[in-house]
Amino acid sequence: MDATRTAEQGPLAGVRVVDLSTVVVGPACTLALADHGAEVIKVEAPDGDLMRQLGGGARHRGMTGKFMNFNRNKRSVCIDLKTEGGRAVLRRLLEGADVFVTNMRTSALDKLGLDWESLRAVNPRLIHCLVLAFGRKGRYAGRPAYDTVIQSASGVAGAFQASGGEPRFVPFVMTDHITGQIAAQAIGFALYRRTRTGVGESIEVPMFETMAAFVMREHMGNLTFDPPIGPVGDARILNADNRPVPTKDGYIAISPNTDAQAFAFFEAIGRPELKTDPRFCSVAARTANSLDYYALRASALRGRTSAEWLEILERIDVPAMRYNTLESLLDDPHLEDAGFVSRVDHPSEGAIRQIGLPNAFSGGNRPQTRPAPRLGEDTIEVLRECGFGQDEIDAALRDRIVHGVKPEERQ
Amino acid sequence: MDATRTAEQGPLAGVRVVDLSTVVVGPACTLALADHGAEVIKVEAPDGDLMRQLGGGARHRGMTGKFMNFNRNKRSVCIDLKTEGGRAVLRRLLEGADVFVTNMRTSALDKLGLDWESLRAVNPRLIHCLVLAFGRKGRYAGRPAYDTVIQSASGVAGAFQASGGEPRFVPFVMTDHITGQIAAQAIGFALYRRTRTGVGESIEVPMFETMAAFVMREHMGNLTFDPPIGPVGDARILNADNRPVPTKDGYIAISPNTDAQAFAFFEAIGRPELKTDPRFCSVAARTANSLDYYALRASALRGRTSAEWLEILERIDVPAMRYNTLESLLDDPHLEDAGFVSRVDHPSEGAIRQIGLPNAFSGGNRPQTRPAPRLGEDTIEVLRECGFGQDEIDAALRDRIVHGVKPEERQ
Repeated sequence: MDATRTAEQGPLAGVRVVDLSTVVVGPACTLALADHGAEVIKVEAPDGDLMRQLGGGARHRGMTGKFMNFNRNKRSVCIDLKTEGGRAVLRRLLEGADVFVTNMRTSALDKLGLDWESLRAVNPRLIHCLVLAFGRKGRYAGRPAYDTVIQSASGVAGAFQASGGEPRFVPFVMTDHITGQIAAQAIGFALYRRTRTGVGESIEVPMFETMAAFVMREHMGNLTFDPPIGPVGDARILNADNRPVPTKDGYIAISPNTDAQAFAFFEAIGRPELKTDPRFCSVAARTANSLDYYALRASALRGRTSAEWLEILERIDVPAMRYNTLESLLDDPHLEDAGFVSRVDHPSEGAIRQIGLPNAFSGGNRPQTRPAPRLGEDTIEVLRECGFGQDEIDAALRDRIVHGVKPEERQ
Repeated sequence: MDATRTAEQGPLAGVRVVDLSTVVVGPACTLALADHGAEVIKVEAPDGDLMRQLGGGARHRGMTGKFMNFNRNKRSVCIDLKTEGGRAVLRRLLEGADVFVTNMRTSALDKLGLDWESLRAVNPRLIHCLVLAFGRKGRYAGRPAYDTVIQSASGVAGAFQASGGEPRFVPFVMTDHITGQIAAQAIGFALYRRTRTGVGESIEVPMFETMAAFVMREHMGNLTFDPPIGPVGDARILNADNRPVPTKDGYIAISPNTDAQAFAFFEAIGRPELKTDPRFCSVAARTANSLDYYALRASALRGRTSAEWLEILERIDVPAMRYNTLESLLDDPHLEDAGFVSRVDHPSEGAIRQIGLPNAFSGGNRPQTRPAPRLGEDTIEVLRECGFGQDEIDAALRDRIVHGVKPEERQ
């Protein structure tokens, strides 16, 4: 990396975000902001974000790999909001902030004076983003957010039943990830509007409504019409046999869609007679007989290894792709070419793998230099930046209103 | 809706987007922009976006429910880019645009003179957003994008295998949806940067890298450390038994996590002795025996209906939630309270259900008034706005460079 590139900045450089959120949906939102250059101050209670303990092991308590992956490029400030002094510190941080992100329940926010009406009075430029489980206009308002609750209610689990199985959850905290990304999107839009209006605003992003819209756009289909003009769901996507195809030693994905692709595929699997089979001889025929076509594919590739098939299919121009397990993804050759996962030394946690930035901005990307923070690692630095004097900081530490990592623990 | 509200605008009001994209990932991106107030001009070839034919039935050819749900709040301009005149029309639209979104392959873009270097020369404020299947730095660059290919390569399908089953795809075009939302986020960030720099930029959003990061953040866990400190994956999320629980007449989701919740749940299912069972008597015990705990839950609710259980569990403060099928989602009582799905009359397609805007912006939301367009419905209007004279428009229509819907077909 040359000197020019290290001087680059992401598009949100200079945007100051105070992040009072935990676990996944809020941290996923502020990660998107941080990765694009915003200065994110992660405010944590004295026992820290619960995510510090979740998702796998750690070399040191409170620093799981999953926590680090969601919280790099942020700084951690530890404040005890149960104290009046702690609440005053947070309000002072918010006076100079551009954005406040929280997934705290509204009743708790109101009690702490962190609702938008209270905060705009001291900082009219503040963008106040509240991620909710459920929007305020319906009967589930105020109920707690669990990803599984949202997957159950929003039809995500229902899509598995519609594809011929039992309801199940996607093995990702998918509704947190998606809602978090959409909250970051909304914040970007509001920052843009602020450049014209000069004032901030309140944004509410409810997980349930967000995911309901996601599911409906995909699967409402014939029920978009009133009365409906056919059954619910996009049949092509719900087809349970549309899945990675087993080979001799694993799986690959294949998409022989056009006639040229399908016919080349039939040759490759030693079934040239299928080119004139009325079930498979045209796009329309294969669509009408898609169950048969998928069933054919499912048993066609067992004679060779994945690598052999990928080489053959590439040669004959049939779209096909490697299947990655969670492990092999890290060694994917394309990602290795791109240096997408890099080895870096974390100052306290040692050698780690760092996930790259997917998007490229010609106007500059954030250099990925800041490791995920230990709890309270940046308390003193951030308070100083916000105008607290050394006496005030010492008093706040002594009174246990805020907590820092002791200097001798720093590496 | 009163007069004050109809005067509201979304945060992207005044932003002009030229959208040369088809099917899902690009249209999902520009839908997010349109729903937040941008003026999106959907540029379509004479045979239209393929999505006009996909995803279910239609009352009139080219207007499936799925197409309408992804393309409301946009205008359709039909241009034949195979003609030099058509390319000139598109370039003129781009001269006055803020944003250009495309998922065309780079070789085709270059040939049409629609690459960023060519366009910035005529419009230096343009934000040029290219959604790619694979980033340019790795060996898969230039391969076509299919959602299933990306699910296979990125570890989405792999997570199902890691949770104890066969690899499969999520029954959503999930990688298109998510990448599209993230592309819209990136555009918002670039619009914000442009207010400071005065110039546009090029953004590249690759689906594979985007989804690889999504999967790694969730499941890299112990492999974040080098060397790894344990197996890959977040075991809690990969637990195959964490799914909606069968009742007498359906399913519900339950999350009895704390001791108070678990003990109340044991009482409710008539198993009070489990409160002192060493497998289930504490959070730590239930975590250590989560397979048993899930198995217990899976068979505990068959004695009563979903409605009965939801009432009981609400009374005893155990988090629980309705399970919605793809059909019942549309009748969900919370969404009905909020008026989330409204009945509107589409000018050509009749009575339809319209999906609400999930997010609330206190600074104003886009009023949802514009129905999804028929192919070329807005060609003439948009060309006029872009400064084309009536003579030019008549000539372009006559020479079949552009196509409009004939006035007598308008309703």
